[in-house]
Amino acid sequence: MDGLFTANNVWMMICTALVFFMHLGFSFLEIGLTRSKNTVNILFKNVFIICIGLLLYALCGFNLMYPGEFNGYFGFAGFGIALPENGLTVDYAGGGYTYWTDFLFQGMFAATAATIVSGAVAERIKLGSFMIFTILYVGIVYPIAGSWQWGGGFLSEMGFYDFAGSTLVHSVGGWAALVAIYLLGSRIGKFGEDGSSKPIPGHSLPLAAAGVLILWLGWFGFNGGSVLSADPAGTSLTLVTTCLAAAAGGMGAFIFDLLKNKQYDLTMMLNGILAGLVGITAGADQMMPLDSIFIGLIAGVIVVLSVSLIDKVKLDDPVGAVAVHLICGIFGTLAVGIFGAKGFFTTGSFEQLGIQFIGVACYAVFCLLTSGLILFGLKATLGLRVSREEEIDGLDDHEHGMSAYGDFVTK
Amino acid sequence: MDGLFTANNVWMMICTALVFFMHLGFSFLEIGLTRSKNTVNILFKNVFIICIGLLLYALCGFNLMYPGEFNGYFGFAGFGIALPENGLTVDYAGGGYTYWTDFLFQGMFAATAATIVSGAVAERIKLGSFMIFTILYVGIVYPIAGSWQWGGGFLSEMGFYDFAGSTLVHSVGGWAALVAIYLLGSRIGKFGEDGSSKPIPGHSLPLAAAGVLILWLGWFGFNGGSVLSADPAGTSLTLVTTCLAAAAGGMGAFIFDLLKNKQYDLTMMLNGILAGLVGITAGADQMMPLDSIFIGLIAGVIVVLSVSLIDKVKLDDPVGAVAVHLICGIFGTLAVGIFGAKGFFTTGSFEQLGIQFIGVACYAVFCLLTSGLILFGLKATLGLRVSREEEIDGLDDHEHGMSAYGDFVTK
Amino acid sequence: MDGLFTANNVWMMICTALVFFMHLGFSFLEIGLTRSKNTVNILFKNVFIICIGLLLYALCGFNLMYPGEFNGYFGFAGFGIALPENGLTVDYAGGGYTYWTDFLFQGMFAATAATIVSGAVAERIKLGSFMIFTILYVGIVYPIAGSWQWGGGFLSEMGFYDFAGSTLVHSVGGWAALVAIYLLGSRIGKFGEDGSSKPIPGHSLPLAAAGVLILWLGWFGFNGGSVLSADPAGTSLTLVTTCLAAAAGGMGAFIFDLLKNKQYDLTMMLNGILAGLVGITAGADQMMPLDSIFIGLIAGVIVVLSVSLIDKVKLDDPVGAVAVHLICGIFGTLAVGIFGAKGFFTTGSFEQLGIQFIGVACYAVFCLLTSGLILFGLKATLGLRVSREEEIDGLDDHEHGMSAYGDFVTK
Repeated sequence: MDGLFTANNVWMMICTALVFFMHLGFSFLEIGLTRSKNTVNILFKNVFIICIGLLLYALCGFNLMYPGEFNGYFGFAGFGIALPENGLTVDYAGGGYTYWTDFLFQGMFAATAATIVSGAVAERIKLGSFMIFTILYVGIVYPIAGSWQWGGGFLSEMGFYDFAGSTLVHSVGGWAALVAIYLLGSRIGKFGEDGSSKPIPGHSLPLAAAGVLILWLGWFGFNGGSVLSADPAGTSLTLVTTCLAAAAGGMGAFIFDLLKNKQYDLTMMLNGILAGLVGITAGADQMMPLDSIFIGLIAGVIVVLSVSLIDKVKLDDPVGAVAVHLICGIFGTLAVGIFGAKGFFTTGSFEQLGIQFIGVACYAVFCLLTSGLILFGLKATLGLRVSREEEIDGLDDHEHGMSAYGDFVTK
Repeated sequence: MDGLFTANNVWMMICTALVFFMHLGFSFLEIGLTRSKNTVNILFKNVFIICIGLLLYALCGFNLMYPGEFNGYFGFAGFGIALPENGLTVDYAGGGYTYWTDFLFQGMFAATAATIVSGAVAERIKLGSFMIFTILYVGIVYPIAGSWQWGGGFLSEMGFYDFAGSTLVHSVGGWAALVAIYLLGSRIGKFGEDGSSKPIPGHSLPLAAAGVLILWLGWFGFNGGSVLSADPAGTSLTLVTTCLAAAAGGMGAFIFDLLKNKQYDLTMMLNGILAGLVGITAGADQMMPLDSIFIGLIAGVIVVLSVSLIDKVKLDDPVGAVAVHLICGIFGTLAVGIFGAKGFFTTGSFEQLGIQFIGVACYAVFCLLTSGLILFGLKATLGLRVSREEEIDGLDDHEHGMSAYGDFVTK
Repeated sequence: MDGLFTANNVWMMICTALVFFMHLGFSFLEIGLTRSKNTVNILFKNVFIICIGLLLYALCGFNLMYPGEFNGYFGFAGFGIALPENGLTVDYAGGGYTYWTDFLFQGMFAATAATIVSGAVAERIKLGSFMIFTILYVGIVYPIAGSWQWGGGFLSEMGFYDFAGSTLVHSVGGWAALVAIYLLGSRIGKFGEDGSSKPIPGHSLPLAAAGVLILWLGWFGFNGGSVLSADPAGTSLTLVTTCLAAAAGGMGAFIFDLLKNKQYDLTMMLNGILAGLVGITAGADQMMPLDSIFIGLIAGVIVVLSVSLIDKVKLDDPVGAVAVHLICGIFGTLAVGIFGAKGFFTTGSFEQLGIQFIGVACYAVFCLLTSGLILFGLKATLGLRVSREEEIDGLDDHEHGMSAYGDFVTK
């Protein structure tokens, strides 16, 4: 049993490291798809999110999210003073991992929701306001939302299924991103006076592509670790469905975009990969390979349509976060009801689909309300958006007094 | 037994993730060593290769490569519908891993062959033609070639030894790269009218260096996973020989190049590391540390000479792919016959060397024929090479309508 | 037992890979914080360090560091010819890992000390002199210093505690960095004639930030592997304390710097993360989460003060290596005596603090003497510093004849 416990815990720790590494992926993706004059600002936000996210999860998030397990809401078992008696033994989680691994793996997830928002609001949000939003959303909203399902709450009792967080992580971030870009407004120059949309190209496609590949790598841990042990059958199937959905997502978006827009658009293929990954996340352990390929292909098509739709309704999402994380997150969650459990079109059910829909709706209401409240409050007080001058000059110059690429001549 | 099976499968899944990550390494290396006007194109090709490579391996590659194991050639056990009965148990592969892990690990290898070609043909190949080549080479040629040895075919019966693919992966890619650069011709400006060779410097040495370090990291999985279990003795020796060969390759190339060309050439040291890695791959589990250091040193010298030779015969290989993957792949395969099995110069044999030579020759003939047929067919129909105007302007502009570094002033 | 041995060895091999990957982190950090005209030079140094470091550790380092285990000082058990009888069995290290894993994990640590120096001396040291310094410091000084504690030497017998190397790795590198920047002098333009200090901004903050995140990832292996097995309780606690200290370090430096200098300084937050990581390293397995948060916060404050202090005494350390690795390394080592063993302020003792202080002092004397001797000798013979002309033009041009970013227009 020792060997199995140790192997399980090793797997979970590696998955934790991989999920941590996703923050570099998000950072690269976000800076790659935006302008160089705002790069320091984006890096600052993302590094801040990891640091504060982990500390907040230690302070209150872990307890808020798993309220049944221990008493009190603060200090995750007293920061170790009141460590659960069996926390380091095989009894803690069926031999899957220790209490410490549990905290760290879940803590790495927590920061992700705010990072998703970070990309959408890039190039125009006030740093101070974003930091306050992050603290409230990661510290309180995310863990409460998570408790409904992963903490054994009412959605879990109802039979809702969200394996690794298409809804609990990606949509939770995505809803707030949607609210934020609505309240913030679009970047100067994004939409012409005649209502036309103008592309604002990113400044480093190598970093954007690297970001997506690092995120794909991170998803080995994000989904693979959500098995909560190293069970060979469960983990290896999960990695296969995850990778096939990513590959199909990339191909689906590439081909659909080629047919629709007659171009070989790298950023669309990259978004397609992320769409496939977000789409499979809710049911990565429940699908067969062919299901996962279908889910990836559909998510790839959805993301192309969504990016276009968001653009049409005059919302400005520099990195496509709403299309990828919110819309594909919803699709992925519903896909569990459609494609069902390990059955290749055979075991999906209308009943499950209904439950999935209810779950999606609950998170929609809660996240729209909470993020709306926080962001509206910030808008009314500190303000959400930097000045016109600061936006044009770049946030790096005004908020940080430094340039990301001091040696280079930029346009 | 459960603990051992789980630990083995954990190791194989991590190695799979590391081999996946090599695609970022290849991408960084290729864009780093070429010009910024073709960067989007290279990224597009490399991301495409991963996506299509995995899907093709699921569609037919896995079954073509391991024909004895299951019936049929399509849909790797029916995409899970007809999963082998023992596929998720210790009986499947002696407790080393599950059927799903097997597929994913081998699938990650498959895409590598095409990626090797991608670097050599960079900056001038038509995107459409390259995609068709990739589909045929990854989907059909690679798995058939692989079946001769890893699928239990005639070379394996003859006693050929290629532990992790000096020949089966690297030379298979390298032969096609050689054919492709011969048929494509050199980039405009590479060779003067007087026959002189002019260096075309890469646009980002940080990305090139990062690419090599990421590839080295990936080789922990490439070679370490080829043990096909986590056997402590086998895997740890393999990592030691792999790392020592890489280090010796870097030093060998650096010092030899310093003596030959009186310069501290970073790109040569980087190529030396890759040369050492490719060189040790065929026998990484069979060598002692001192052997691996010798193999690395020799590979480092070989790569410097090969780069120079390829240049002299007026072939244009922007990233040195033929020198690294083909020539050092051949050397590494023969080195198994020279340095022999775990014996420090004592157990190499002429007999084994002969068998190794036959294996190399079989792959040479097959890969030259198949890649020649595909590439010649493409040249005669769609054309292989972009127009002169497109090449001068850069492929990013014409094929993708975007720039990799929109904010920066380039020369 | 097989399962446990295998799981342990898997963990140690992964940690080895992660520590290897830290070299990309160091490279990115160093080039990101310096000017683009010296980028090739820094990459060359760092790639050289990894290659020569591993080979030297095989040649003599491993035996020098662990003298009790095997006979002789050269060729780590004859490069495998005289492999310890039990080297591949559970008897070798209590089932934690094999002899080969032992060598490779320790070998990856060895190169780190020289890499720390590399950042401090950037942009002005002669390549040849630095290479000679590296060979002597990594090949001889580091392993002898290490033998005092990890090799079972006198400090270990005295009760000195340095879990993963706040002193043995980070301070050992840091002392040499201090000596080197003193002997080298500051970069041209760093200090005005009136004694004022002028910032010399780095050329790529994305690479600097990526470097820090990669280093944080690498620390999962650096500290996690220092448990020397995959013991679930020990490894998972170590990862929690490591990550919380990093997060607290980033927040501590950010907030303290904001209060002190009224700016949102990304580089200070990044240095704070590293400070927290170095600070926790000596006692990562001995602290409770709350201790690690305090240690991180304090280290974050210390690094801000240290950077400022080093600047005030007119020492020029382009990447803050002395502040991070030396000063926070000393603090982390003493913190073991202050915060004590797994006890939340209760079990630190003056006695332990005294022993920690003696250990720090021993390393100070030894490292100052040895690095001073080597560097002074080099200064008196080959010279340490490049010519004024070379420094102004950039080392890439003179020493390597190439540019890191050939396509871009630089200032």
